[in-house]
Amino acid sequence: MTLDRQVRDAHAAWLQIRNWESAKIVALLESIAEALDSAKSELVPVAMEETNLPEARLTGEVGRTTGQLRLMARAVEDRTYLDITIDYADASLTPPRPDLRLKTTSLGVVGVFGASNFPFAFGVAGGDTAAALAAGCAVVIKVNPGHPRVSRMVGEIMIAAALKAGAPAGLISLVEDFDSGLALVEHPLTAAIAFTGSTHGGRALFDVANRRENPIPFYGELGGLNPVFVTRAAASDKAKETAEGFLGSITMGAGQFCTKPGFLIVDGASAINTELSTLVSVAPAQKLLNSNIVKSHDKNRDEIAQVPGMRLIAQNSDGGDTNVSVYTISGKDFLAAGESARREVFGPTAVVVDCSDSAELLKVAESFSGTLTSGIHATESDPMDLSLLISHLERISGRIVWNQWPTGLAVTWAMHHGGPYPASTNPLFTSVGAKAILRFRRPVTYQNFPQRYLSPVLQDGSAELNGARINGK
Amino acid sequence: MTLDRQVRDAHAAWLQIRNWESAKIVALLESIAEALDSAKSELVPVAMEETNLPEARLTGEVGRTTGQLRLMARAVEDRTYLDITIDYADASLTPPRPDLRLKTTSLGVVGVFGASNFPFAFGVAGGDTAAALAAGCAVVIKVNPGHPRVSRMVGEIMIAAALKAGAPAGLISLVEDFDSGLALVEHPLTAAIAFTGSTHGGRALFDVANRRENPIPFYGELGGLNPVFVTRAAASDKAKETAEGFLGSITMGAGQFCTKPGFLIVDGASAINTELSTLVSVAPAQKLLNSNIVKSHDKNRDEIAQVPGMRLIAQNSDGGDTNVSVYTISGKDFLAAGESARREVFGPTAVVVDCSDSAELLKVAESFSGTLTSGIHATESDPMDLSLLISHLERISGRIVWNQWPTGLAVTWAMHHGGPYPASTNPLFTSVGAKAILRFRRPVTYQNFPQRYLSPVLQDGSAELNGARINGK
Repeated sequence: MTLDRQVRDAHAAWLQIRNWESAKIVALLESIAEALDSAKSELVPVAMEETNLPEARLTGEVGRTTGQLRLMARAVEDRTYLDITIDYADASLTPPRPDLRLKTTSLGVVGVFGASNFPFAFGVAGGDTAAALAAGCAVVIKVNPGHPRVSRMVGEIMIAAALKAGAPAGLISLVEDFDSGLALVEHPLTAAIAFTGSTHGGRALFDVANRRENPIPFYGELGGLNPVFVTRAAASDKAKETAEGFLGSITMGAGQFCTKPGFLIVDGASAINTELSTLVSVAPAQKLLNSNIVKSHDKNRDEIAQVPGMRLIAQNSDGGDTNVSVYTISGKDFLAAGESARREVFGPTAVVVDCSDSAELLKVAESFSGTLTSGIHATESDPMDLSLLISHLERISGRIVWNQWPTGLAVTWAMHHGGPYPASTNPLFTSVGAKAILRFRRPVTYQNFPQRYLSPVLQDGSAELNGARINGK
Repeated sequence: MTLDRQVRDAHAAWLQIRNWESAKIVALLESIAEALDSAKSELVPVAMEETNLPEARLTGEVGRTTGQLRLMARAVEDRTYLDITIDYADASLTPPRPDLRLKTTSLGVVGVFGASNFPFAFGVAGGDTAAALAAGCAVVIKVNPGHPRVSRMVGEIMIAAALKAGAPAGLISLVEDFDSGLALVEHPLTAAIAFTGSTHGGRALFDVANRRENPIPFYGELGGLNPVFVTRAAASDKAKETAEGFLGSITMGAGQFCTKPGFLIVDGASAINTELSTLVSVAPAQKLLNSNIVKSHDKNRDEIAQVPGMRLIAQNSDGGDTNVSVYTISGKDFLAAGESARREVFGPTAVVVDCSDSAELLKVAESFSGTLTSGIHATESDPMDLSLLISHLERISGRIVWNQWPTGLAVTWAMHHGGPYPASTNPLFTSVGAKAILRFRRPVTYQNFPQRYLSPVLQDGSAELNGARINGK
């Protein structure tokens, strides 16, 4: 089938479901979740072959994926995504106010580009697909070339489960080749794009979406350097604990997480560096997703190693596809190096920036820009006043983590996964958690409408008006 | 002062106010509103000279402008724009959930580009400025070249009122020349742009914002064709009333409104066209904003007159800068002409599309795309089933108006002024009404934070937690 035909079919399917009552959308999401849970034992081995990720992680990831689908079902039941807002007519105002009733409506066909590092949770049935379907959209999904077989399997399961739940054919479909992905972003009937992946690839598609005759919303989650800051007190009181936590976080998923803390900025790093040199050298072997990722990791690592003043603390030697490598650099050299030192290395490589005092730590903080997360490690009654640091981190981060590590993302209502560019191409929205549904709905106001042509949720006396904003209250 | 210095000063001022308590922002907005109300009698005569708009309209517009500032103050007091959402830590979950607290934060320096047609309400102190200040942002405002003198006066009044309310210098400033406007969109410290104006100019700046190394949110309200559909029953039962309403709407503000209904699509237009030919010929003289607008109106009108099958119904002859011109074309010819017939003419020109039946009316409806508003005129118990028409209008419109006219915009909570491109470059947000504040805030999640470093509104026991979403409820 051509891409054009596929998008047209998706558009036609969307027209059929766009006014579905919420119970049918909930049933659709739950049908898909149930089918994926049932197929777990067939899916995981294929994903293991394609991604080198271990069984326990992938099994857990299927559960996370179906959990995301079910959280989206709860968000649909919750109805706040409809944003129902009513101002009744009021002839006593100057000028007189007409009857105005607002609710959101679904955008249309959403093109989804999944990531390489989470074959399930950010894959074909991942968070973006769940959010788009929950919003009442159709999806055309570009398969990540890193795991085509398991993606096809998930796609078939989803499509069958959707048909079983009464969805029209064409509501969900996959494309595989690069050119079809590009054509999907350009297609006149595509209404929005959701992308998770590299800054380079995401930016290229963002540019295509904005060059369209009618530009469309592009939700790209492109990554982050995720700097974590350690006060002098914490560096001295909790050197071992901090070094262990950092190493655990940068090797989780073999360092292939968009929330990996690539930079640990320490006010006095010598104790932590000593701990790291022991710990890193005996770190377990790392298997990366595929040979392309190994190549690009090693290249980026070697480039960061060339930054003047950069020094290797330790590397592990236990086989694997590549080494775990932790470098260190003084705050002064880091600041002198500029952009070349602030580079995302996808894989198990990280940098400790060794600052001479808290003022230099703040200067290093100010050299970072848009990032998904940032973090602070401090003691219970830390002598450093962290207000200035927090103030800067608020300006650049989507999430700030205190005395924990940024990897491992809770999928909840209060999660924000986004942030100023390049964390996200639209910093107002999260790509993870219940609020991710909001990306695929836009408001429409109905002025002076007769009851019979209003959506049931906006009609006088509808249950949905309870708790809605009425006359500004 | 150079533009660079100006944006840096605005950024520094933003850093000072970004954590202001809401009462101080409310006082700032009310101080500006009060100062503008007091200066009404000095402002209106200058605006009259610069825009040719009549005294009554401009006096009312100052009131609308200060009403917008006060509505924004109410939105700040309301606090829902903070979007406070909390998930408390829960160790019993798999995986255990950390404490997550989300609130929105202001974006930074907002560049505001005001419109020519509303020197006050969409001008220097207009809706975008009010929304950005309410959100806790600084503003650098590009003055519209159509009314520089009154813009400077409004700017001086605003800046003085802001200082009086305790705002730091630099929080509000103006730029005038074209190159400074461009540099404002490109400046690294500019965090978002709000633009109201032509599709051509807005698209050019949208492209600049997206070409930045770090693209920023661009909220452009670029216009619309605002098609209004009339059923056969309404065309016959209410021909005179419909013709009068239509003429009133297309000549309000001399047709220089972005919500002007440029196209009236009628199932059987002969009675309405007969009424229009009488009414239009005696329509009052029109004074346009300035000679450039006259030139561009006349050029666009003459081009639409050249569309094959287009026929002039009537033109007024009462002096003025240009004529009121209403054309008509058959549905068949309109569809055959394609894009060349669907052209926005800024000024008192409009087109009646005369359809032979309701099926053709639907086909014409489907030829329209993104628009701020659309409308339907029908009778009480209209025999036409309007579901299909409404379904299409929902897909292309930000607001749908029933048996009223789209001009005259209520500034309320339930208003949506936006829509698919080119109505808006971001169809998820309104540029008018209380929700316009949402464009200038983005979420941040605080994970595992100690109470002492949380914003007061997120601390345990804060009044703002009442009514907030806690643990997904």
